[in-house]
Amino acid sequence: MKQQRTAGAIATLAALATSAISQENTIVHDAEYYILEAQYGKVWAVEDGELDGKLAALREQYDAPPNIVHYMWDDQPPMAFGDPIYQQIRGYSTPNLNRLAEEGMQFSRMYTEPGCTPSRAAVLTGQNAIRTGTWEIGFPIEYTGLAAENVTLAEVLSAQGYATGFFGKQHLGDTEESYPINQGFDVAFWALYNQVTSLYNATGEGANAIVGMKEELLADNPYQRDHSFVQDEGFVFYMEGNKGEQAAEWRNGSQEVQDYNDFDIESRKRAIDFIRQSAEADKPFYVAWWPLWMSFIPNPQKVTLQRGMVGESYQRVIEPDIALLRETLAELGIAENTLIVAMADNGPMTHNPPAGAGLGEGLFRGGKGDFTEGGVRVPAAALWPGVIEPGTYAADMIHETDLFTTFARLAGATQHIPTDRIIDGIDQTALLLNGDTHGRRDHVFIYQGPDLAATVKDHYKIHWTSDDPGQAKSGLTAVYDLYNDHREANPIVVGGFHFKEPFKRMRARHELWKQKYPDREHNRGRAYTNLSNARTATLAISNPPADFDDLPFDPLEFIEHLDQLPYELGEPGYGE
Amino acid sequence: MKQQRTAGAIATLAALATSAISQENTIVHDAEYYILEAQYGKVWAVEDGELDGKLAALREQYDAPPNIVHYMWDDQPPMAFGDPIYQQIRGYSTPNLNRLAEEGMQFSRMYTEPGCTPSRAAVLTGQNAIRTGTWEIGFPIEYTGLAAENVTLAEVLSAQGYATGFFGKQHLGDTEESYPINQGFDVAFWALYNQVTSLYNATGEGANAIVGMKEELLADNPYQRDHSFVQDEGFVFYMEGNKGEQAAEWRNGSQEVQDYNDFDIESRKRAIDFIRQSAEADKPFYVAWWPLWMSFIPNPQKVTLQRGMVGESYQRVIEPDIALLRETLAELGIAENTLIVAMADNGPMTHNPPAGAGLGEGLFRGGKGDFTEGGVRVPAAALWPGVIEPGTYAADMIHETDLFTTFARLAGATQHIPTDRIIDGIDQTALLLNGDTHGRRDHVFIYQGPDLAATVKDHYKIHWTSDDPGQAKSGLTAVYDLYNDHREANPIVVGGFHFKEPFKRMRARHELWKQKYPDREHNRGRAYTNLSNARTATLAISNPPADFDDLPFDPLEFIEHLDQLPYELGEPGYGE
Repeated sequence: MKQQRTAGAIATLAALATSAISQENTIVHDAEYYILEAQYGKVWAVEDGELDGKLAALREQYDAPPNIVHYMWDDQPPMAFGDPIYQQIRGYSTPNLNRLAEEGMQFSRMYTEPGCTPSRAAVLTGQNAIRTGTWEIGFPIEYTGLAAENVTLAEVLSAQGYATGFFGKQHLGDTEESYPINQGFDVAFWALYNQVTSLYNATGEGANAIVGMKEELLADNPYQRDHSFVQDEGFVFYMEGNKGEQAAEWRNGSQEVQDYNDFDIESRKRAIDFIRQSAEADKPFYVAWWPLWMSFIPNPQKVTLQRGMVGESYQRVIEPDIALLRETLAELGIAENTLIVAMADNGPMTHNPPAGAGLGEGLFRGGKGDFTEGGVRVPAAALWPGVIEPGTYAADMIHETDLFTTFARLAGATQHIPTDRIIDGIDQTALLLNGDTHGRRDHVFIYQGPDLAATVKDHYKIHWTSDDPGQAKSGLTAVYDLYNDHREANPIVVGGFHFKEPFKRMRARHELWKQKYPDREHNRGRAYTNLSNARTATLAISNPPADFDDLPFDPLEFIEHLDQLPYELGEPGYGE
Repeated sequence: MKQQRTAGAIATLAALATSAISQENTIVHDAEYYILEAQYGKVWAVEDGELDGKLAALREQYDAPPNIVHYMWDDQPPMAFGDPIYQQIRGYSTPNLNRLAEEGMQFSRMYTEPGCTPSRAAVLTGQNAIRTGTWEIGFPIEYTGLAAENVTLAEVLSAQGYATGFFGKQHLGDTEESYPINQGFDVAFWALYNQVTSLYNATGEGANAIVGMKEELLADNPYQRDHSFVQDEGFVFYMEGNKGEQAAEWRNGSQEVQDYNDFDIESRKRAIDFIRQSAEADKPFYVAWWPLWMSFIPNPQKVTLQRGMVGESYQRVIEPDIALLRETLAELGIAENTLIVAMADNGPMTHNPPAGAGLGEGLFRGGKGDFTEGGVRVPAAALWPGVIEPGTYAADMIHETDLFTTFARLAGATQHIPTDRIIDGIDQTALLLNGDTHGRRDHVFIYQGPDLAATVKDHYKIHWTSDDPGQAKSGLTAVYDLYNDHREANPIVVGGFHFKEPFKRMRARHELWKQKYPDREHNRGRAYTNLSNARTATLAISNPPADFDDLPFDPLEFIEHLDQLPYELGEPGYGE
């Protein structure tokens, strides 16, 4: 009986999806989209006709589709740029970013995934990270990464003739499949993991004695039995390469603080060179420029009142990046045909941040890793001179996956979006071109790790899991009114009971649709394979870790089991 | 020994004070000011010379000193106006206030007292509320109020020939001394208490059954022994009057919701009339216009997305007030010679706010009543076309008491500031006229009720009382870096130990100075005396409460004992 009903619901959704196909290619949306489309489809169709006209006129004017620069960095709360009062309160300022924001559109409701890896995967694939097995924040050595079967924005835009470049922190795995040059980017210069690795050297060890990644700096530990918890020296942090070629490790394994700081400088140089070369070759381009920006080894010489990692890193990396980017676009005469989206990848690292980092909680409750708004709302702005109205503020909801779909539309590349999976990204061209209130999203599903933890509809939010006494766990509703209680501190209870069933239906539609399009698990594989300059120690990690050479079972089999943790530990040979 | 050292320290401070007297009238500042003056006195003297020149030129240009409008309302966090992103997040907008802010200077560090009564007393007297016995938030019937011995801004400016008007919520007591017409205002129309009184009628009782102020609406309570906990019907909420005359109750005791809502409309009318009449009489004017604005009985018809009391009340009261104010000034041709300061009186009521009020925590931790920044930092902007540079943001610290001293300076009335008491307000004319970084304050002492709870110096803040384990209570320091940790969530501990002794010295100077200029206690007295239209029930409260007529002791003696609560309760006759 239950199964029958479920099958019926899927059929209904499939029918809805089919009716949508004829109107706008064959993108498979999440279920909730069809609920909106049923109400607004006709309005949107008219609007889309006008937008197509606008875009065609622009393409004729510039004899090319727009260039797209997606500049993204870590761990910032809304208002971290573009808001002078907030910046005075925090003790830093970002004149270049603020000017970009003032001359473009600022978003007050840009949603992301709650962590770096899932967020970066989502924006590149147009899918929530739960669907692509990328919901876990990666640390070395992962033996996982973005799977080949994903179709990234770089692939979609490449198929339409764009030059595509990746510069900065990727943080999408250490498997060969995940290398950006194997995910559609023509050119890439990237860091495999996150900022914590700035500590993995003698300077970092000195500043943070607790890390202990460099055994040679430590006293002999007579109690240590297993060296596999200390990072292997074959660990790779920086790579570079071109599509169709082998990747190479940058700086041959040197991972000193100087290398770390140089990385962003080198990214800047390569990003600008790539833009210049693409423009000179009359090729439209798409750049994912995601700086490392923050270092856990700060410079003693401060340039901001804040002194914190956040304030300082804006000055050291992001401000000069943005300045040079805009100068270059102006110099090349392509500023008016280039869309820049600048944004953070998730909320601040509020839980046990480094002392004096400037990473405390912002306006919202929680931060990185949380399903509260503090984890998933970020500062964001879009600049497109002459196209996006300057000095505007958009309160429409927008999700980072929307950038995938929107950028594809702007590039005329929607037909390259895969149609065999759910694309969470909604086309928000109308929001960018027609302004606030023209958005097409009124909901987000917020996953925390592998769990659906919260859902937002309009300005109401339900916590599916809640520690509030008497709320979610006892079958009541933990519904919050984000306008009145943006910190999600007081569930509205009586005033929110009528939302319980609509939220449940929404969740059911979302989950039923997954029966047809299931989530994928982590994509496991060997790390660091196919490097042109692989070091011996790196090869030892790839085939396979030397420490495991003498195990009485296939030493790579564990890779397939990582997702089934925790194991029932037993006798040696459990894997046989 | 201890006493000797103390006397010596006082002598030193007194000497410092004497040396200051010759330079700038005879204002007695708090001790910390002299520490700054010792370092910056010469620079300030030069700057003051230039400022005097500027002010003299302005006075010549307009043939009058500037008009001053101080517009203040309740319970708002920084960025509540003037910040479009924050307003989109909260679901309301205030175009008129935002325009005022954009055309003037916004303050990111405006400090106030943490509650209505202390805040309003502080801005009118230039003294922290602890010094004037006004640190307690008043509720009817108080039998206390601002003492006659206080010298208010209205008195200071009246002495210099200003017309002075008070319109709105005073909340400074119910004694005759405290009536604004007895505190220097030529004309006044005022509410004696706060917004909670909007519930004290049948509509309010219906909406909030728990109040129980109207006994006639309740079932007979056979367990009730004492009726004095239920508000007497002689309770007075609205008054009006002129200096030198008897006050009168407005609307003869009617306190229906309609009266409540009409009050702000009537305030607006009277404030504008007062401005118009003063201008037409060529009199410089000072207006304290402090609307009631929020009502606990909201209108079912909403005009904002927020729907909350905050968002709605901006539209109902403040936006039209500001619009009409600016139109009137423009029409009268005096906009360029009028300084408007718009601000909140303290942080939001975050602790048990009414449901859906929009009063949740903002960027800062805590709210009304707290010594954390959430209690004492407010949104504020100053507009003075042609004088204050438009579009500027001031990160200099400023305290509401500074407005007392600064307004006096601008009016040329500094000589009327009393010199027999500590004036906490620092002259911030340089900040207004010369812009950010020209402020003269780097510290505030934050009292929570009668206790010194925290002290801020620059961007460091010490909690003198703290629940953080191992902090203040064990003699360590609970010092917070407000740039890095504006929510005061993580004391910096090791990085802040060197602040312990400087903060202690600062506190000692502050407290030693009080031995010469002691804090005053609440000023107690009869309520509602000398009303031209006193109702019988009101007279019964004044002379004295009828319920106490048959007590075997002087029925008014309890007034003098209110500050010594809690009593040791004993036999009847304890007061003899």
